[in-house]
Amino acid sequence: MSLDFGPATGLSCRECGARYPLGPSFACLECFGPLEAAYSFGAVSRADIEAGPANIWRYRSLLPVPEDVADKPNMNPGWTPLVKAGNLGRKLGVKSLYVKDDSANPTHSFKDRVVAIAVEAARNFGFHTLSCSSTGNLAGAVTAAAARAGLDACVFIPAGLEAAKIAMARVFGGRLIGIEGSYDEVNRFCSELIGDPMGDKWGFVNVNLRPYYAEGSKTLAYEIAEQLGWRLPEQIVIPVASGSQLTKIDKGFKELVALGLVEDTPYKIYGAQALGCSPVSGAYKAGHDVVQPVRPDTIAKSLAIGNPADGPYVLDIARRTGGAVEDVTDAEIVAAIRLLASTEGVFAETAGGVTVGVLKKLVETGQLDPDAETVVLNTGDGLKTLDAIADGAAPTAVIRPSLDAFRATV
Amino acid sequence: MSLDFGPATGLSCRECGARYPLGPSFACLECFGPLEAAYSFGAVSRADIEAGPANIWRYRSLLPVPEDVADKPNMNPGWTPLVKAGNLGRKLGVKSLYVKDDSANPTHSFKDRVVAIAVEAARNFGFHTLSCSSTGNLAGAVTAAAARAGLDACVFIPAGLEAAKIAMARVFGGRLIGIEGSYDEVNRFCSELIGDPMGDKWGFVNVNLRPYYAEGSKTLAYEIAEQLGWRLPEQIVIPVASGSQLTKIDKGFKELVALGLVEDTPYKIYGAQALGCSPVSGAYKAGHDVVQPVRPDTIAKSLAIGNPADGPYVLDIARRTGGAVEDVTDAEIVAAIRLLASTEGVFAETAGGVTVGVLKKLVETGQLDPDAETVVLNTGDGLKTLDAIADGAAPTAVIRPSLDAFRATV
Ligand SMILES: Cc1ncc(COP(=O)(O)O)c(C=O)c1O
Ligand SMILES: Cc1ncc(COP(=O)(O)O)c(C=O)c1O
Ligand SMILES: [Zn+2]
Ligand SMILES: [Zn+2]
Repeated sequence: MSLDFGPATGLSCRECGARYPLGPSFACLECFGPLEAAYSFGAVSRADIEAGPANIWRYRSLLPVPEDVADKPNMNPGWTPLVKAGNLGRKLGVKSLYVKDDSANPTHSFKDRVVAIAVEAARNFGFHTLSCSSTGNLAGAVTAAAARAGLDACVFIPAGLEAAKIAMARVFGGRLIGIEGSYDEVNRFCSELIGDPMGDKWGFVNVNLRPYYAEGSKTLAYEIAEQLGWRLPEQIVIPVASGSQLTKIDKGFKELVALGLVEDTPYKIYGAQALGCSPVSGAYKAGHDVVQPVRPDTIAKSLAIGNPADGPYVLDIARRTGGAVEDVTDAEIVAAIRLLASTEGVFAETAGGVTVGVLKKLVETGQLDPDAETVVLNTGDGLKTLDAIADGAAPTAVIRPSLDAFRATV
Repeated sequence: MSLDFGPATGLSCRECGARYPLGPSFACLECFGPLEAAYSFGAVSRADIEAGPANIWRYRSLLPVPEDVADKPNMNPGWTPLVKAGNLGRKLGVKSLYVKDDSANPTHSFKDRVVAIAVEAARNFGFHTLSCSSTGNLAGAVTAAAARAGLDACVFIPAGLEAAKIAMARVFGGRLIGIEGSYDEVNRFCSELIGDPMGDKWGFVNVNLRPYYAEGSKTLAYEIAEQLGWRLPEQIVIPVASGSQLTKIDKGFKELVALGLVEDTPYKIYGAQALGCSPVSGAYKAGHDVVQPVRPDTIAKSLAIGNPADGPYVLDIARRTGGAVEDVTDAEIVAAIRLLASTEGVFAETAGGVTVGVLKKLVETGQLDPDAETVVLNTGDGLKTLDAIADGAAPTAVIRPSLDAFRATV
C-alpha cells in the first residue's frame, strides 16, 4: 500500500515525542499519549494559498492530504464567513468583534472540516466503512461525506439526541446506531469495536483516524488569520467538548507564525462550556491540571462530553496564552442564541449560544479585554437545535388578510 | 435624495419597454407590465470578477448596487458550491451532472441573494422597515438581513408553514405575521398594505422593491457559468414558484453572452413544479400562453404560489430555449430528496426534491438529453422541511453499548 499524506511524514506522541509511521494508530505504545500528525513543510507563501479554492483545500500544503485532494469527491468545507459583528459588539461593549460562522459548512457544522481530512486517510488506508462516535453533528458530517465519497457508513450516537440531528444523520444513508447511554459510553463502545473483527477495515474518524481528523480544525485558525488580512486575533472564544478543536486552533496559529505567514503577535485562547457539562472549566477554576469526568446534563448536547480527551491540553493552552475557561447556564445559552440572531442575523445552535454566552460573561467579569480584537466561533446551526428556542417560535400574531386585522395588532 | 444603484440607470417595462427613473415602483403606468432594472454596463472582464470576493459582490458591476456595497453590513450570500454529481448522474443516466447547492447560503436558501440586493434598494430609498410576503424561506432571509443591516422587519407568511421556517423567521427579531390563508392571499394583502399609511417607508422586497430584488437571481447564472470555467451549461433545471428566479437566470446567461464573458452556446431551460401546485407546467402541457391560477396542495410549500406573476415568461423561456416545464408528485419529491442525499451528501428541502424529481422524470420521458451537460438547482435546505422525511428519520437500531447487542443488529 503506497500512502500519500502530502506534507505529513509520520505521527508523533504529544506527550513523549516518540515517532511512528503514518498509519491508523492513535495512541503511543510507550506512554499511551495521543498521536499527532508530524510534517515536513515546504515553502508556503500567502500568494500560493490565496490562489487556491474557496474551501479548506487552499491550505492543502499544511494538511495531511495529497496534492490532488480537491480532484476527488468530497464535501469541500471551509472558507466560511468571518462576520464583522458590529451590532453584537456594541451590545456587549466589545470594540472589535468578529463571528466566525461555521454553520455555513455543507452539513452546517465545523465537523465537515475534520471529516474531510479523515476521508482522505480512510482512502489511504483502504477502509471501506466510515464510522464515528458522535454528539450529533459529526454523525451527519460522516454520513454525508461517505455518500459523496462512495464509502459505507455506520455511525454511533447517544439515543437521546435532537430530532433534526438524527434525521440528518439518517437521510444520507448508511447505518445509524443509537446507543442507550451518554456520549462517553458510545465512545467507549467504539473503542471496543475497533478491536473486534466486526470493525475491521473501518475508519472511526475520531478514534483510529483521529490524528488526521483533528488536523482539520487547524483550518479554522488559518482562515481566521487570512480573513483578518494575515494576522492573528488578540482573543478568541472556542467551544470545548473533547477539546480537540481548541487545541488544534492553537496549533494552527503557531504553524502560521513558524512558517512566517503571520507576525508573531500574542493571542489569548478562551474555552467555553455549558455549566451542565463543564469538566474543563471546573478544573480551570479549581486550578487543577487534570479533568474530573462528569455526567452531562445540558441542552448543549453537541458539547456534552463528560470525559474530554484533550481537556488537559485545553487547560494548558488557556493558562499559557492568558485566556480562561468559562461556562454558562442553559438559560444563558438560549439568551445568547437570541442575542446573536437578532444582532447579526446568525442563527446558532446551542454550541454557538455557549460561546457567545461565555463571551458576554468574560466581558462582564473582566476576564476579556473589550478593547482587544476578538473572534467568537459559531460552530453549528440553529436549525438543528430548534427546541432551545421553542418558546416564542411562533408568529407575533395570526390574523385574517385585512388591513383592519393588521391595524389591531399594532 | 441621491441614489446610487451602480450600473443600473433606470427601470423599464418588460412588456412595452416604457422607461422610468429608479424608484420604488414595480408596475408600468402604461400597460401594468412588470418593471425591470435597466443598465449601462461598463467594460467587465473575467479577471475583474475573479479578483472579487467569494460571494455575489464579485458581480457587483452587473447588479443594481453601489460600488462599495461590500463595505456595508449585509449577509454576503452566494458563491455556493457547484457539486460535480457523479453518483447521482450514474443513477439517473445523466453523463455530466452538477448540483448548484444554494442551501449553503447564510439562511440556507437562494433567497439570501435576492434580499441582499433589496437591502441596498431599501437603503437608497431611505426605508426603515424591510417586509415581504413569503412562502417561508424569504421571511427568514429578510429578518436576518434586517437584523444585520440595522433595519426593522415585519414579514408576512401563510399561517400553515413548516415549524422550522416559522422559528427561523422569528429568531432574528422583528415582527412575523401569520395570515389565515394561502400565499396568494398574503401577497394580495401586502399589495394593499403598500398603499396604506401603515406601510409607508416600508420596503416590501418582493413587491415595491421587486425590480431590484429579482436581479439577485442573475447571480446564480453568473456563478454557474464561472464555475463551469466561463461557459454556459447545455441544460438547467430550475424550480418555479412565482417564476422570477427562472426568468432572471435566463437574463443572466444572456447578459454574459452580450458582454463577451462567455461564448454564445445554446442552452435549454427546464422549469420544475410540484403537481400539487403546477399552474405553469399545466399551461405548458396544454400549450397555453396564459397561466390559470390554482389552489396549492403540496408538501413543497416554498413553491406553493398558485398565481405566479412570472408564469407567462417561464412558458416563453422554456419554449424558446427548447426546454420544458414538468411536475412531480409529493411522493416523488420525497424519493428525490433521499436520492440526492444518499448519492451526493446534499440535504435538500422539498423544493430541491422537486427539481431532482423533475430531472429524473425528464430523463425517463426523453425530454432531456442525458448526454448533454446538465445543472440542477437545490435552492433550499432539508433541515427546514424535516416532516417530508419523517418516515425513517430514526436510528436503524437502538442498542445497549455492547458488542453482542451490536452483533445482533447485523
Ligand atoms: C457544534 C460543535 N461545536 C463544537 C464541538 C467541540 O468539538 P471538540 O470535541 O473538538 O472540542 C462540537 C463537537 O461535537 C460540536 O458539535
Ligand atoms: C427554496 C425555494 N426555491 C425556489 C423558489 C422559487 O422562487 P421564484 O418565486 O423566484 O420562482 C422559492 C420561492 O419561495 C423557494 O423558497
Ligand atoms: Zn508517548
Ligand atoms: Zn408597459
